[in-house]
Amino acid sequence: MTTPKHYQALSQEFQRIYHFQHLQALGDWDQATMMPMGGSHGRAEAMAELAVHIHQLKTAPLLLELLDCADSEPLSPSQRANLTEMRYQTLQANALPSALVQAKTQLTYQCEHAWRDQRKNNDWQGFAPNLTAVIDLVREEAQILGEAQGLSPYDALLNKFEPGTQACQIEQVFNEVKTWLPDLIKQVQQHQASRPHLTIPASSVDKQQALSLDVMSLLGFDFNQGRLDVSSHPFSGGVPGDQRITTRYEEQDFLSALFSTIHETGHARYEQGLPLEWRGQPAGQARSMAIHESQSLFFEMQLARGKGLLSPLTAKVNQHLGTQFTATQLEHLTTQVTPGLIRVDADEVTYPCHIMLRFDAEKALVDGSLSVADLPDFWDNAMQSLLGLSTKDNDRNGCMQDIHWPVGELGYFPSYTLGAMYAAQLRGAIEAQLGNIDQLVSDGKLNRVFEWLQHNIWSKGSLLTTNELITAATGESLNPQHFKRHLFNRYL
Amino acid sequence: MTTPKHYQALSQEFQRIYHFQHLQALGDWDQATMMPMGGSHGRAEAMAELAVHIHQLKTAPLLLELLDCADSEPLSPSQRANLTEMRYQTLQANALPSALVQAKTQLTYQCEHAWRDQRKNNDWQGFAPNLTAVIDLVREEAQILGEAQGLSPYDALLNKFEPGTQACQIEQVFNEVKTWLPDLIKQVQQHQASRPHLTIPASSVDKQQALSLDVMSLLGFDFNQGRLDVSSHPFSGGVPGDQRITTRYEEQDFLSALFSTIHETGHARYEQGLPLEWRGQPAGQARSMAIHESQSLFFEMQLARGKGLLSPLTAKVNQHLGTQFTATQLEHLTTQVTPGLIRVDADEVTYPCHIMLRFDAEKALVDGSLSVADLPDFWDNAMQSLLGLSTKDNDRNGCMQDIHWPVGELGYFPSYTLGAMYAAQLRGAIEAQLGNIDQLVSDGKLNRVFEWLQHNIWSKGSLLTTNELITAATGESLNPQHFKRHLFNRYL
Repeated sequence: MTTPKHYQALSQEFQRIYHFQHLQALGDWDQATMMPMGGSHGRAEAMAELAVHIHQLKTAPLLLELLDCADSEPLSPSQRANLTEMRYQTLQANALPSALVQAKTQLTYQCEHAWRDQRKNNDWQGFAPNLTAVIDLVREEAQILGEAQGLSPYDALLNKFEPGTQACQIEQVFNEVKTWLPDLIKQVQQHQASRPHLTIPASSVDKQQALSLDVMSLLGFDFNQGRLDVSSHPFSGGVPGDQRITTRYEEQDFLSALFSTIHETGHARYEQGLPLEWRGQPAGQARSMAIHESQSLFFEMQLARGKGLLSPLTAKVNQHLGTQFTATQLEHLTTQVTPGLIRVDADEVTYPCHIMLRFDAEKALVDGSLSVADLPDFWDNAMQSLLGLSTKDNDRNGCMQDIHWPVGELGYFPSYTLGAMYAAQLRGAIEAQLGNIDQLVSDGKLNRVFEWLQHNIWSKGSLLTTNELITAATGESLNPQHFKRHLFNRYL
Repeated sequence: MTTPKHYQALSQEFQRIYHFQHLQALGDWDQATMMPMGGSHGRAEAMAELAVHIHQLKTAPLLLELLDCADSEPLSPSQRANLTEMRYQTLQANALPSALVQAKTQLTYQCEHAWRDQRKNNDWQGFAPNLTAVIDLVREEAQILGEAQGLSPYDALLNKFEPGTQACQIEQVFNEVKTWLPDLIKQVQQHQASRPHLTIPASSVDKQQALSLDVMSLLGFDFNQGRLDVSSHPFSGGVPGDQRITTRYEEQDFLSALFSTIHETGHARYEQGLPLEWRGQPAGQARSMAIHESQSLFFEMQLARGKGLLSPLTAKVNQHLGTQFTATQLEHLTTQVTPGLIRVDADEVTYPCHIMLRFDAEKALVDGSLSVADLPDFWDNAMQSLLGLSTKDNDRNGCMQDIHWPVGELGYFPSYTLGAMYAAQLRGAIEAQLGNIDQLVSDGKLNRVFEWLQHNIWSKGSLLTTNELITAATGESLNPQHFKRHLFNRYL
């Protein structure tokens, strides 16, 4: 069967866009890992030029015409799915007037720049007007994006990261979690109170790096299709076929680099496992931020903190760092639950509290029921109720701690906890089909877990919607009970 | 004074092109230093897309219109020089029919690929028809480029690398060199016959790297504007503001990495010193391949093999590698003259013989007076007469040794020896103005040499033609007598 000609022409256009996105990924990675300071001005100019070019390609009138023509062509279900993704990406690129995009770029650049100092100085009074201006613009953006898609403003923001997911679904899930999580946290703290105190010995960067590389191999990272480097914030970048992940070494805490490497390896294996035959097409790309996070958290939380993998992990730690940990000690170190103010330092159990708080706040900021001026009180109240902690007069460790809002990224936060929930749900499905994961790993069958993920998640790219993907893999839509069961199993 | 509007518009177009060239430089560097094998297919596609885009920008009809309009605007001399470079680049991009460019890309790709094995196997019979096809296409290219510029075919090829330089000038220079160089080589060999034999101890890559970085600092490399990495063939890449140089470490021969680092540092300082106010414009770019090579060879040959710099270099070698060399021993090791078959292994004295041979050969291949079939005999005869060596039945170490012809780069070779000659001429001018260079370096005034180069060469970019640049800096056009005097001074 020959490929219908308009669809074919569209595919070629998206392949071109993808080639320029390849360069974008390379530029971003290099900037964070390799580029000397003096290169930043020239790089910023080149990357801006590239972004303009990609935007021009995505908003070319030809694309819209081709989309309409291809729609009435006889397409296979996969081609139809690809067309849907093409239309979605085109809509996202075309929806916003360029004046708004430009204004947002400028405003968030300034807000982020000022925020770096304001946060350090706990300068809420200085930050508030900047954030207000950003929120105003994001509300305008949300309004326009929502109208273009027939969505509420906040849902339109959510859909930038989680296509097809609505705030009301997340609300339902999160409201249920709020009924048991604060209590669970208290129980876990009591449960862990008798644990012996452990100290972490210092380890050189070289040794930690050798450990990271060894663990990446254990987790099936393909070094012919990627590499590990260092950046100030760990991330997973590059392109499928050439995954560039990073970590950051702290001599006083080898667990930080080790577990961020494991996390990013999860992201990387997803990208390395995306369907080769769809590479360069929208349908060949990772499904959503939450699904991406489900893979990194599956590696970091479900696998690496489980008794099955902890045993070989402990052996590798001792081998590379010359320590003498037992697997139980490493388990204790990596499953310690302690309510804290900072999201990025939070453990697996308290993490959702940070997300639920932000989700409630940003929804209310967007629908106007919460003003920026009232944000510190809102934050303090929510922290008190969820984690029993106060952020009064401590906004730097409260509502000023994250970069997301200063850069105008509202709608992103839920992905983290949705990811954790999907990860637990995938684990449930794997165990139903293959048996207990820790046992599988202990039996040397870790690869069967990866094969399952390859078959059910990685190889699907964006050929299915998030809901179709999860339902096909697990037999049901998002079901937070798996996450609840996982937490109770592991922590009580 | 306001900038004339057509000229202004042109500048903006070239700035855009420059931004995409920035990405091209990054992609090339990454491919040679960082990219895992699995990334090559995706990278090749992205780079091809980028090359097409840059070619489209350079051949946009708008550019030709703007060039004509700007020509009649009131421009400063520098703007006029920039316009000349713009016109030159545009002409180069527009001259060739895209079918020819595409055919050459494909043919040379195949020829190079096959050559890698054919060279290993000394398979001249297999290589000859491939090279014939490449030469045929290059002759067509040369014909078209020549007609577009009113140049002979070979001059048109030369001009791709050395704008404004003609084969007849080079012939005159090379013919004079041939009258004394073969004899000098014999004299130097006799002169060096009594030198004691020295062995080079093995050194670890880590120690060699620390030595390289230290020597780069000594030579004024700005690490805020660049970095050193490893690649299989050393090169200087990146962009002004972010110079990426590479070296290659051999445990058995630290001098290889050390002197290639010094060589590339010369290239890098030229790029780092290009005029900031012209960055992104054609006039702000390096003048030509020979001028580039003059800077790298000034560092590698004139400076680093001179008695002034050898002393601190020796100290650094001993410090980092734990050796106990004297400066005289290092001088002997780095100035040993030995006629050999391989150009890239040749010393400073015999190197021009390799170039003169190739210049004569490629000129004759392009004008048709030499057929590919006769190349092995031509090569053998020339090697016999210049260096007293035969390449009979040894084409892998004769006419098959270089990558240049398999990839269709004819016209490039002369740049190497022109560079060596310009370097010697610049040294002459510096010594006439500032005094003996070795003495300056010994007196801790190395920086005065760099300041001179910054003022006279680096800061000029392409604002002057090669001849204007050299004349302004040294008071005369290319004069090979400086090179001759340098060789006699150093080696006899």
